[in-house]
Amino acid sequence: MADSWVIMVTAQTPTNIAVIKYWGKRDEKLILPVNDSISVTLDPAHLCTTTTVAVSPSFAQDRMWLNGKEISLSGGRYQNCLREIRARACDVEDKERGIKISKKDWEKLHVHIASYNNFPTAAGLASSAAGFACLVFALAKLMNAKEDNSELSAIARQGSGSACRSLFGGFVKWKMGKVEDGSDSLAVQVVDEKHWDDLVIIIAVVSSRQKETSSTTGMRETVETSLLLQHRAKEIVPKRIVQMEESIKNRNFASFAHLTCADSNQFHAVCMDTCPPIFYMNDTSHRIISCVEKWNRSVGTPQVAYTFDAGPNAVLIAHNRKAAAQLLQKLLFYFPPNSDTELNSYVLGDKSILKDAGIEDLKDVEALPPPPEIKDAPRYKGDVSYFICTRPGQGPVLLSDESQALLSPETGLPK
Amino acid sequence: MADSWVIMVTAQTPTNIAVIKYWGKRDEKLILPVNDSISVTLDPAHLCTTTTVAVSPSFAQDRMWLNGKEISLSGGRYQNCLREIRARACDVEDKERGIKISKKDWEKLHVHIASYNNFPTAAGLASSAAGFACLVFALAKLMNAKEDNSELSAIARQGSGSACRSLFGGFVKWKMGKVEDGSDSLAVQVVDEKHWDDLVIIIAVVSSRQKETSSTTGMRETVETSLLLQHRAKEIVPKRIVQMEESIKNRNFASFAHLTCADSNQFHAVCMDTCPPIFYMNDTSHRIISCVEKWNRSVGTPQVAYTFDAGPNAVLIAHNRKAAAQLLQKLLFYFPPNSDTELNSYVLGDKSILKDAGIEDLKDVEALPPPPEIKDAPRYKGDVSYFICTRPGQGPVLLSDESQALLSPETGLPK
Repeated sequence: MADSWVIMVTAQTPTNIAVIKYWGKRDEKLILPVNDSISVTLDPAHLCTTTTVAVSPSFAQDRMWLNGKEISLSGGRYQNCLREIRARACDVEDKERGIKISKKDWEKLHVHIASYNNFPTAAGLASSAAGFACLVFALAKLMNAKEDNSELSAIARQGSGSACRSLFGGFVKWKMGKVEDGSDSLAVQVVDEKHWDDLVIIIAVVSSRQKETSSTTGMRETVETSLLLQHRAKEIVPKRIVQMEESIKNRNFASFAHLTCADSNQFHAVCMDTCPPIFYMNDTSHRIISCVEKWNRSVGTPQVAYTFDAGPNAVLIAHNRKAAAQLLQKLLFYFPPNSDTELNSYVLGDKSILKDAGIEDLKDVEALPPPPEIKDAPRYKGDVSYFICTRPGQGPVLLSDESQALLSPETGLPK
Repeated sequence: MADSWVIMVTAQTPTNIAVIKYWGKRDEKLILPVNDSISVTLDPAHLCTTTTVAVSPSFAQDRMWLNGKEISLSGGRYQNCLREIRARACDVEDKERGIKISKKDWEKLHVHIASYNNFPTAAGLASSAAGFACLVFALAKLMNAKEDNSELSAIARQGSGSACRSLFGGFVKWKMGKVEDGSDSLAVQVVDEKHWDDLVIIIAVVSSRQKETSSTTGMRETVETSLLLQHRAKEIVPKRIVQMEESIKNRNFASFAHLTCADSNQFHAVCMDTCPPIFYMNDTSHRIISCVEKWNRSVGTPQVAYTFDAGPNAVLIAHNRKAAAQLLQKLLFYFPPNSDTELNSYVLGDKSILKDAGIEDLKDVEALPPPPEIKDAPRYKGDVSYFICTRPGQGPVLLSDESQALLSPETGLPK
């Protein structure tokens, strides 16, 4: 009976999207970047990872299940995170159940980890960022590590670079750091999610049949072959980081949008300057950019910013709900769903934006007028898989309700 | 009768494609570039402009016909070329016909110009380069200007920057120059067309429904907004120019291919770094690059170089006829013609490459095996409009056969 207990912690961690991009490592092993980056955390209500970590003397080895399927923990990135958190473990006591784990016990105890994304994995929606952030956050709580979220971010960074930015809500800066051991390469919050709460985010998940270069491989090849990357990292990004922090603090949307779009485009420019060149955006991505650029220009002041990560999906940040509703109308005009798709499964997340846009069913989509800023606007049915409406959101939280745990409190195995 | 004579000259001038790109002017009016560029001249048998220029005391004004349609000469670019050549005009005498034009007469005499491209205009095949080169070359001959082709290139440059490189065959360097009046911004021949005569060039004219940004507008916006362009122009291109000249002189195809591809990609990278971003390549362009990159890698040494100008068309330079035949097989596998297209109108130019590739009709195209270097290779029927097979070629020539003139020797009007 003594070794049949299971102690569990469940946490939820958001994903994030960079508005000043991270592309290129100066240290592959420690995952240290060539420049600072800034991201916005996405509302976990729509895009997050939930992770339950459990410890029990009955566990024979560390094991992990991702979206219900067991995966190997032998990869260096998982091992880094597990090792670093174990090294920071402290005494844990559950007086009620008479369980005591001392600091040194953690070296011998094994953990079970179950993780679940509330959004399609492998759709290019930064699932590894939310995943590693959640893993590190949950393990730290389980093992009673005393480190604050910035310190934890430096550990999550060793799982996946951009994961460090998912340890906070709102807008987050990953400081590249200077020291060799990487201990100062960590995330800090720029402002929390309440600071600029009229922003609305619409993600267009773009259909693609091209196999993409992984960001790990891509950024290594860029560092090795692009003659533009170092100039970007050393001369351009440092100034942009200062300007971006200013824009966010002052809620200056025009400046924010300009910097966000320019930095996304420059990131894709250095990808193209790589040998062989890397193309993450496709014709649909280009058309979404064109739609936003033409609209912004026709209005005179930016209504929407766009940014693209290592894939064709567009992340569109609207100034406010009104701009978001107009944006959604335009997007649905250009990219109506295939005829066998229901509106309800085509626009996901915060559906109130759809209501604001006056769209209740597919007939309303059919009847949308062409955006006046483009002549003879064509429609590209089926080129977008679906949209997700969301907003800036909070950082990691613990879920105390045991019903939300992904592991059984008796067996420590997936429910 | 005295003023009814017409004197004419007909010239033929090739088009050219840059292997180190010209993108960005330091002087908009004089068309002075921010960096040197190097091009290969394409065989005029497949891609050239023919221009007839005529002078007669009976002409009331300067007039021009392009591909049979009269166009206005009032644009600054035409006026620049006409003014500069007139300023260099010399005495002309036709003893047989008893005609004498003295140097100062040229100021009062008007010219008729008829120009014809032997390839589709507006397909993004640098028709303005061949056109302005031919205009300047033909006018210079008509007016007995003593300037050599390099000096004439500095005039053609004021019509269209890249036109200056069409004054020579083989490989040509446009030296950016230093002096303010632009007189040292001109073209020189690197090697003639016989120096490296086993190269074969295949152009894929890519179907596109996107309206493209003109190169004049595009490069102005890049100069104004890209933070990467100056670094490219000042730090990267000067070194590449030296390496490219070396590669060409030594017929080092591996180095030539590496530099050509890298510089094309970097040009498109600075376009993407422009605000708003400029996308000249589309998904088909990306697929052609991927096809070449994968093949080159699978062989171990480059077989083919690719380069793209301000549009989606690919210019593919194969190491030799054997590589060209293999390339054409691969291209026709990925991009077969639409079923209503005949092979004869789908592969234009030097059709002997088609024969080398063992392809006689559409059934042979259908039966092509998938390139082994790509798994589950898909076919993109109709994504390429047509191919042109050609090679490096000679510079401008005079056509003495009057039957090739585009203007009537009696009326000075289009035949």
